[in-house]
Amino acid sequence: MSVVELGRFMDDLAEASGQATVPFFRAQVALTDKAAGTAPFDPVTEADRAAELVLRNMIRARFPAHGILGEEFGSERLDAEYVWVLDPIDGTRAFITGIPTWGTLIGLTRNGGAVRGLMHQPYLGERFTGDGRSARLRGPRGERTLHTRRCVDLSAAMLATTDPRLFTEGDEAERFRAIEGRVRMSRYGTDCYAYCMLASGQVDLVVEAGLKPYDIVALIPIVEGAGGIITAWDGGPATAGGRIVAAGDPRLHAAALEHLNP
Amino acid sequence: MSVVELGRFMDDLAEASGQATVPFFRAQVALTDKAAGTAPFDPVTEADRAAELVLRNMIRARFPAHGILGEEFGSERLDAEYVWVLDPIDGTRAFITGIPTWGTLIGLTRNGGAVRGLMHQPYLGERFTGDGRSARLRGPRGERTLHTRRCVDLSAAMLATTDPRLFTEGDEAERFRAIEGRVRMSRYGTDCYAYCMLASGQVDLVVEAGLKPYDIVALIPIVEGAGGIITAWDGGPATAGGRIVAAGDPRLHAAALEHLNP
Repeated sequence: MSVVELGRFMDDLAEASGQATVPFFRAQVALTDKAAGTAPFDPVTEADRAAELVLRNMIRARFPAHGILGEEFGSERLDAEYVWVLDPIDGTRAFITGIPTWGTLIGLTRNGGAVRGLMHQPYLGERFTGDGRSARLRGPRGERTLHTRRCVDLSAAMLATTDPRLFTEGDEAERFRAIEGRVRMSRYGTDCYAYCMLASGQVDLVVEAGLKPYDIVALIPIVEGAGGIITAWDGGPATAGGRIVAAGDPRLHAAALEHLNP
Repeated sequence: MSVVELGRFMDDLAEASGQATVPFFRAQVALTDKAAGTAPFDPVTEADRAAELVLRNMIRARFPAHGILGEEFGSERLDAEYVWVLDPIDGTRAFITGIPTWGTLIGLTRNGGAVRGLMHQPYLGERFTGDGRSARLRGPRGERTLHTRRCVDLSAAMLATTDPRLFTEGDEAERFRAIEGRVRMSRYGTDCYAYCMLASGQVDLVVEAGLKPYDIVALIPIVEGAGGIITAWDGGPATAGGRIVAAGDPRLHAAALEHLNP
């Protein structure tokens, strides 16, 4: 399969998953009116499962030898050369509260390295893609190439993180506060948009913890494709999830690592 | 002016302000490359000022006797029967970081009471309106009437707040934590969307502090029009800003007040 064909297939995946998720977004559900003993209708779980099934079926049909790692339905053939890594709804709290900044994450690894990534926000119609060498956004205002921006010092940096309560293990909270106390501004509630806005040159630094591989694999080729750097806090590969630090400028990444590993 | 004409005029205000703000959203700016001694290009300030000028000029031309209270250019004729209350960019951090959940707030008070409100997100094309008796959303999926949802107990409630660091005065932080520790889930980074999602039946409770009148006046007729209740923490009117609590269900509002005023 050519690079162009792979890109088209990933677009098809995005399109199909969007058709599965959007009908559940802002679906009206009386959360406190659950009848005892019946399974409650949970829009985000329904959307998650519907989208992952669609994605898995399309991938199995097209690439029967590829592996799949998904949030909802586990893993298959993880020893394959190519493995798809799927998070149908990244940003569960955003989805539940009706805020349109959740996204569908579709990543592809080859021999364990993240080689292609796509983030799709179907309600907005925004699609971020990357292959580690370049990154692009297609959205309401057309298509453009993404580039991270220059930012050398923590004191000038805009930091994004999904939730300051992510940092629950060991001295994670202390390390995060050490970074947050030095930046120009921090913003919460960002989920996958944090990494896409870093790739877009709007955010300088993302610091998170407690991530799963499916939370991050799709975002690595987007961040790296735009010129950024994304690793674990210890500088190792980000593909395993856990504690993640991403920076638009490699010098800022180095400065952040000093505070994350004192 | 009839109610219909007023609605059309407010739509015109939303349209014009959107044309003023959207070009600055995600505008590329090298924040760390400021030349010493020159005024830096600050997209959110530029957008704020451009939109407020457009709004003020349209209001002055149509209603020369009305008062105007705006974030950027101060107040005029606040003793008028009708006063427009404007926040061109509510959600500055969202705007700066490229997250499309900021909004333009256009409120109208009569003799000090909030009678009409509009929240416009021009990048998404979402417009929330309310007049205290009904509330509506026009967006990518058409138009619908908004209703808050039933939620009696804090333990079942979804809470939204823009930032846990809003609570800086007196025992605000302690009071907020007392609420947050009792709810089912809390979500940060919500700005004006918190109130609009409460009106939409997606969020049950919003607790904030340190707000200005222009942060809240436009949202009152939307929340109340959808069946919700919005007051200061002490139960007084929300129009002055400060400490605000909004609930979709009046019983939840009463439960929240107990923890906010122990």
